[in-house]
Amino acid sequence: MRQSLAATVTPAFWAYAFTCLVLSLNLLTLWVSSGAIRAKGGVAINPEDGARYGAPVSELDPPAVARLLRAHRNAEATIYPFLLLGMVYVLAGGGAAIAVPIFTIFIAARIAHSIVYLRGKQPWRTIAFATSLLAVIALMAAVLHVLLTA
Amino acid sequence: MRQSLAATVTPAFWAYAFTCLVLSLNLLTLWVSSGAIRAKGGVAINPEDGARYGAPVSELDPPAVARLLRAHRNAEATIYPFLLLGMVYVLAGGGAAIAVPIFTIFIAARIAHSIVYLRGKQPWRTIAFATSLLAVIALMAAVLHVLLTA
Amino acid sequence: MRQSLAATVTPAFWAYAFTCLVLSLNLLTLWVSSGAIRAKGGVAINPEDGARYGAPVSELDPPAVARLLRAHRNAEATIYPFLLLGMVYVLAGGGAAIAVPIFTIFIAARIAHSIVYLRGKQPWRTIAFATSLLAVIALMAAVLHVLLTA
Repeated sequence: MRQSLAATVTPAFWAYAFTCLVLSLNLLTLWVSSGAIRAKGGVAINPEDGARYGAPVSELDPPAVARLLRAHRNAEATIYPFLLLGMVYVLAGGGAAIAVPIFTIFIAARIAHSIVYLRGKQPWRTIAFATSLLAVIALMAAVLHVLLTA
Repeated sequence: MRQSLAATVTPAFWAYAFTCLVLSLNLLTLWVSSGAIRAKGGVAINPEDGARYGAPVSELDPPAVARLLRAHRNAEATIYPFLLLGMVYVLAGGGAAIAVPIFTIFIAARIAHSIVYLRGKQPWRTIAFATSLLAVIALMAAVLHVLLTA
Repeated sequence: MRQSLAATVTPAFWAYAFTCLVLSLNLLTLWVSSGAIRAKGGVAINPEDGARYGAPVSELDPPAVARLLRAHRNAEATIYPFLLLGMVYVLAGGGAAIAVPIFTIFIAARIAHSIVYLRGKQPWRTIAFATSLLAVIALMAAVLHVLLTA
């Protein structure tokens, strides 16, 4: 079985797989942190949690949790389209020479975005988001180019 | 490298790639607009933004921004499953004759949904959402059919 | 066309396709339910819905709807990374012997999470979430293993 698909594991596919691993870790870290910080903060968003841990229940999250969830939602809004487009690029036969710089810039911009969002640093957050957006647009152009020259 | 995967770029794959590009644009436009309209509205959701731009800080978004974020979340809730299932359909060898109408109807319904959601037009928003949902269900049936006849 | 990709439909790919179908159904059921329960509850989140159905408009959802949306967001936060990583695993030539147990545990944990979240059962919700998280981490390790031994 592995032999029949060995042709898939090109350098571009390898770069994509690595990108998918790192960005999934980025997303899951933000998500797990939001729950952990809510629990540590001694508040509960579900009545059953409040009853279990003796914590007050609030539909509105404390500021640190709400910030983590905003960072997570921003990450989701850019990372999922990027990974779906990246898969298309690689499966269409796109090369590593274009994939590696785009994937690298996107990873760096997304990790930077998470860090500076949590630290409340501006204008770095806007710069990191804009850079990640430019990488998505570059990937869209690369997908179009590969499709039209395939 | 491109040669080894050339077999992948079938008409169905081409249709999928185009669908992925258009729907990613749809998602990113909604997401970027929500931030742009919040900034133009003179409100900030993060204290560091309020300090930087001299804007009042509010945890609750103004109605126009909240509406864009609801449209975005509805788009995410349907588009990501659709694109993941579409990739499975195409990689399983599903043909373009079924993929093209399903992808076309889904794209049209999602773009219509974004437009009528932002304009507050009912029952068109519900009709557009229901149509996009039917397209997802049709795609699920198509995936099952391809798998069972592969 | 189908012949050229027939090599793709390995047992691991079949398991992935089934996983993608079940988890997409899980996500869509939660999402559609949140809208249906809001409508049945006689409240509207958009003014045009309130005007149409003679329902009071509130930016904050009633508790049952907010709970469904939290369950949905938790599902999205884990299922999308899992499905993207699962696709990478299968396309890299990963075998079914590792994929099937990981996919099965993840599916069971996610469906259990949806059910116990909606019923407000603790500590089962935390146990189900932690199990699904361990399955994602196992899948990441499996992806790394396949890549490094490909």
